[in-house]
Amino acid sequence: MNTLSSTKAGEALQPKAKFRPLAVNQIEVSGFFGPKLDVIATTTAKILFDRCIEARMLEQVDPDLPNPGIVIPFQHNNTVTTQMFWDSDFGKSIETAAYALNRQRDAELEARVDAVIDAYGRLQTEDGYLNSWYLRIEPGKRWTNLRDRHELYNAGHLIEGAIAYYHATGKRKFLDILSRYADCIDATFGPEAGKKRGYPGHPELELALIKLGRVTGEQRYLDLAKFFVDVRGEAPSYFDEEANARGEKPEDFHFSTLEYCQAHKPVREQREVVGHAVRAAYLYAGMADVATEFSDTSLDPALNALWSHLTERNLYVTGGFGPSKDNEGLTFDYDLPNDSAYAETCAAVALVFWASRMLGREPDARYGDVMERAIYNNVLSGLSDDGSHFFYDNPLESHGYHHRWRWHRCPCCPPNVSRLLASIGTYFYGVSEDEVAVHLYCSNKADLRVAGRKLSLGQTTNYPADGRIAFQIDPEEACPFTLSLRIPDWADGYSLKLNGETVDAKPEKGYIRLARTWQAGDQLTLDLDMQPHKLYANTQVAHDQGRTAILRGPIVYCIEGVDHDAPLNTYLVKDAVPITPSTIEAWPDTVALEVEALVEYRKDDALYNTEPPLRKPATLKAIPYYLWDNREPGEMLVWLRREV
Amino acid sequence: MNTLSSTKAGEALQPKAKFRPLAVNQIEVSGFFGPKLDVIATTTAKILFDRCIEARMLEQVDPDLPNPGIVIPFQHNNTVTTQMFWDSDFGKSIETAAYALNRQRDAELEARVDAVIDAYGRLQTEDGYLNSWYLRIEPGKRWTNLRDRHELYNAGHLIEGAIAYYHATGKRKFLDILSRYADCIDATFGPEAGKKRGYPGHPELELALIKLGRVTGEQRYLDLAKFFVDVRGEAPSYFDEEANARGEKPEDFHFSTLEYCQAHKPVREQREVVGHAVRAAYLYAGMADVATEFSDTSLDPALNALWSHLTERNLYVTGGFGPSKDNEGLTFDYDLPNDSAYAETCAAVALVFWASRMLGREPDARYGDVMERAIYNNVLSGLSDDGSHFFYDNPLESHGYHHRWRWHRCPCCPPNVSRLLASIGTYFYGVSEDEVAVHLYCSNKADLRVAGRKLSLGQTTNYPADGRIAFQIDPEEACPFTLSLRIPDWADGYSLKLNGETVDAKPEKGYIRLARTWQAGDQLTLDLDMQPHKLYANTQVAHDQGRTAILRGPIVYCIEGVDHDAPLNTYLVKDAVPITPSTIEAWPDTVALEVEALVEYRKDDALYNTEPPLRKPATLKAIPYYLWDNREPGEMLVWLRREV
Repeated sequence: MNTLSSTKAGEALQPKAKFRPLAVNQIEVSGFFGPKLDVIATTTAKILFDRCIEARMLEQVDPDLPNPGIVIPFQHNNTVTTQMFWDSDFGKSIETAAYALNRQRDAELEARVDAVIDAYGRLQTEDGYLNSWYLRIEPGKRWTNLRDRHELYNAGHLIEGAIAYYHATGKRKFLDILSRYADCIDATFGPEAGKKRGYPGHPELELALIKLGRVTGEQRYLDLAKFFVDVRGEAPSYFDEEANARGEKPEDFHFSTLEYCQAHKPVREQREVVGHAVRAAYLYAGMADVATEFSDTSLDPALNALWSHLTERNLYVTGGFGPSKDNEGLTFDYDLPNDSAYAETCAAVALVFWASRMLGREPDARYGDVMERAIYNNVLSGLSDDGSHFFYDNPLESHGYHHRWRWHRCPCCPPNVSRLLASIGTYFYGVSEDEVAVHLYCSNKADLRVAGRKLSLGQTTNYPADGRIAFQIDPEEACPFTLSLRIPDWADGYSLKLNGETVDAKPEKGYIRLARTWQAGDQLTLDLDMQPHKLYANTQVAHDQGRTAILRGPIVYCIEGVDHDAPLNTYLVKDAVPITPSTIEAWPDTVALEVEALVEYRKDDALYNTEPPLRKPATLKAIPYYLWDNREPGEMLVWLRREV
Repeated sequence: MNTLSSTKAGEALQPKAKFRPLAVNQIEVSGFFGPKLDVIATTTAKILFDRCIEARMLEQVDPDLPNPGIVIPFQHNNTVTTQMFWDSDFGKSIETAAYALNRQRDAELEARVDAVIDAYGRLQTEDGYLNSWYLRIEPGKRWTNLRDRHELYNAGHLIEGAIAYYHATGKRKFLDILSRYADCIDATFGPEAGKKRGYPGHPELELALIKLGRVTGEQRYLDLAKFFVDVRGEAPSYFDEEANARGEKPEDFHFSTLEYCQAHKPVREQREVVGHAVRAAYLYAGMADVATEFSDTSLDPALNALWSHLTERNLYVTGGFGPSKDNEGLTFDYDLPNDSAYAETCAAVALVFWASRMLGREPDARYGDVMERAIYNNVLSGLSDDGSHFFYDNPLESHGYHHRWRWHRCPCCPPNVSRLLASIGTYFYGVSEDEVAVHLYCSNKADLRVAGRKLSLGQTTNYPADGRIAFQIDPEEACPFTLSLRIPDWADGYSLKLNGETVDAKPEKGYIRLARTWQAGDQLTLDLDMQPHKLYANTQVAHDQGRTAILRGPIVYCIEGVDHDAPLNTYLVKDAVPITPSTIEAWPDTVALEVEALVEYRKDDALYNTEPPLRKPATLKAIPYYLWDNREPGEMLVWLRREV
């Protein structure tokens, strides 16, 4: 039995354990996420397809339909149109539909997906190439601008869609189509003479190829992912040479610096998260996947430094990152404005991917805690309660004018948040040869294999309403493996009972490792002490000084205008008062919180006055952040002023 | 003698008094603004010319130089390049140079200006047309896009430059050139059949034509200004019809709505300040000028409502406005973010223009106080202490990365702030037939005419270091006129002594009106009680709750990182403590302020923690806001956290 002892960051165990996720058809989710999966299956998955078709994407893909030409004008000094990304929108929408079909079969939705797959099949050329923009709108230009035009990014999302569809329906057609495309890419890019040493401008294909290698068993896809990671940022810059070949000056790059796409230096030398947030986190997820699959510890110094840089200096309390609308990404350390926070939904989704891939190397609550925080807050808020509207940016303060979109000209976020939530079960567990790590808590039933045997593993819990989780562990026969449970950082305490007896174990890197021979009928219960907490920010976070954020379990709270009479920034949370549970009419099963406060008010309405405001008592009603903007429009505030 | 009694807003006096500014050569400024005029004369005026030439502007103007073609690429979906505005940059730079030459003769600078004037003279076509973009880069397209291409805007700035040059040097050549251009415009636009009912996309020409009418005595220039004001925003929209004529869809306007350029409805119907801030304030200045020159009270309801809307709900404490970078203008009421404040230098300059034109209708401290606040804060900060660098946007908080520019691709702000400061003396007084209104306090000596006689009027004062002003009133003979002195809103009290005796007079609309027969040797002293004050904001200003701004006289204060050890948002100003005078090493004659405070600190450096920060005593050193970013780079903060 392999009990993982504490290892220092960067040290290798030989051989390193590889923790892989379950496939979506191996797990049935209920509990907190159940209704979300249902609304995506019944509503959102169809809306995504509706919007793609409305946007005329199928006309670009289907070679037997009239060519739509340029539907979305160029932007960024005429270099790019979001129409170039349509394959990725379809890829992610197909992926979402696949998870929806896994949830409940729906012949109509399935027929719509099959029709799109069929169009892609007819579009694909004999050499396997499959990019609708270059095949239909700008033929003859393939592989000429990897930096800007999302060519390889699109391939990644189509691949992920194809894999999901295969897992959900058993149909291989799209998977075969995309395998042929992957082979075409593999024949074009690589270390061999005659191949291009290029790599994706927008990372994504790396992690998709890892998935493809895992599902097909073909090593060459893993090798190609590793190649893309290894050559990125080599000098001389492939993107600069590509620009010169197009007759453009590298310095005319619209985003000024290759930091934007994390191609400014080889990835192993990178230590700070820079540039576009989604590109960054997708890249790092791919790097962590490569580190896992290849037991490649040479990526660890970069991965660990990048993780620290993000989570210790640049992460919103809601699990989002990337404050700036200008580059949709990073600016400088501790820059965490609340009302202008960009905190793109896709960036939080990408952070979940990255965290889950870091967990692929080993269970460590540093990663699990952040993954959980992002999922329950910045990710979940990206989808409206009824599954029909979407946030692109996720501020931590609204003055009343920020609302979810019906759609967006660059619709990357809707299918991204949808596919993540619809497959959320695949993030619950990480499985290595002889260990099952439990990263997330939610009622579910999973069928997996560990230590060479079948295991049925389940959880029953009201999490995150409370912190009690009962596990159902049913191996097909007595099975020696390690079951590791994450003890979240926010838990004030915990108790663990196995078959009625308290387990006295200390967490290693935040996971309790229970290495034993498990039997059918084993009863395991974990009680996490879940108290609301007030959080305070580092003194260098200018925007959060004099303020506090409320956290209960994984849930960050906020206050909304609809529940309060005065402007939200006039309220002051009193320091030494309890936070008490409450309810919200719209969601009776959700834990709301109340806290005693003061409210400042004035008798005049002058813009500026030499008299300070007056104060009187008030009560604040806080709701989970992810639920905001589902009721009457109004203000919202996460970081509440505190009485100092 | 015409003593103006209190009138209700909008009521007309028949005939209405017309208060006009002095010309720059009528006033010699010393005191606080003296050194600023000197640095502009010795340094800035030349820098402006250097930058214009470096930017290749003269190559576009001079028909005998090779055509430079497109030097600055198009932006805004290929509709506009800032190269189209080059005439305005030259116009404002010539205007600044004129004021510099008025300050001190400089043969070399004068020769440079004459060379540019000569080029414009050779460029002008026989019909008087004079736009270097349309004559040299895009011939045959004149008058086809008033909405976007600054065609009439450029004319306005060239006119203002020509007038200033005439006042400063006595040379008429440029003034004659621009008069011919104004006649060409007058032949093209107007109410008569066959003329276009168009108007400037970016207002400016309106106020320039008023200046031209005043200096030439030609009524038709005043009439043309009134025409542009009267037809703006008529339905059907001239700009929309113009777009259709170009084969463009009006709804493709890059800025979405004609509110951007305040052409969404006739100006007399407008009640809220919307859109681009500089366009707005230039327009309203032109409207107020027309109201004055034509005694046109039908403009008063709009002007008064617009003034209230801006100053009561949308004005930064520093006298800036327009929080948003996106439209360089207004968003929604009380939206006054501090660190992202756009508060464009040009907008504050335009606000000074608008306020001075409102004062043209009558002395009213509502306008004078705002004009003063803008000048001493948002305007003055636009120019570095050494006259060589410029702010485009003027935030009220900096995290350490906001610094003045050497230049800017759209260089509207540098020559704007420079021409305003270099002519600041012309804003000190407003002169009607029998009244002299004193709007601003600064040592100066002015020669003017009132009640048909010459008057030498001077001030001696250390203002704004203290509030004592001694006036020198020397009419050429006994002269009956009203001398009106603004009593600023910030003054806790005042005393006025005339020839040794206290004057017991109450202000009317904030001005003390001294109607008498003045004699040479009359001694008048005004003492304004100047105490530092803490200001608090309306509860709807989300960003300023729990904060206070320090004001002393007209000067808004800030704190800078270079004077403090901790992040500026960790300091808490204690409420009931005095603010005491202090000094700054770099500027020994400037009043700095100190106030007792607390500073919050932490023992850990976690990004988020459940422990609140600790506190210890500290002292804050506040300096005038306009002086920030002249020493070591670092943070800056106007709205200080207060202990609550």
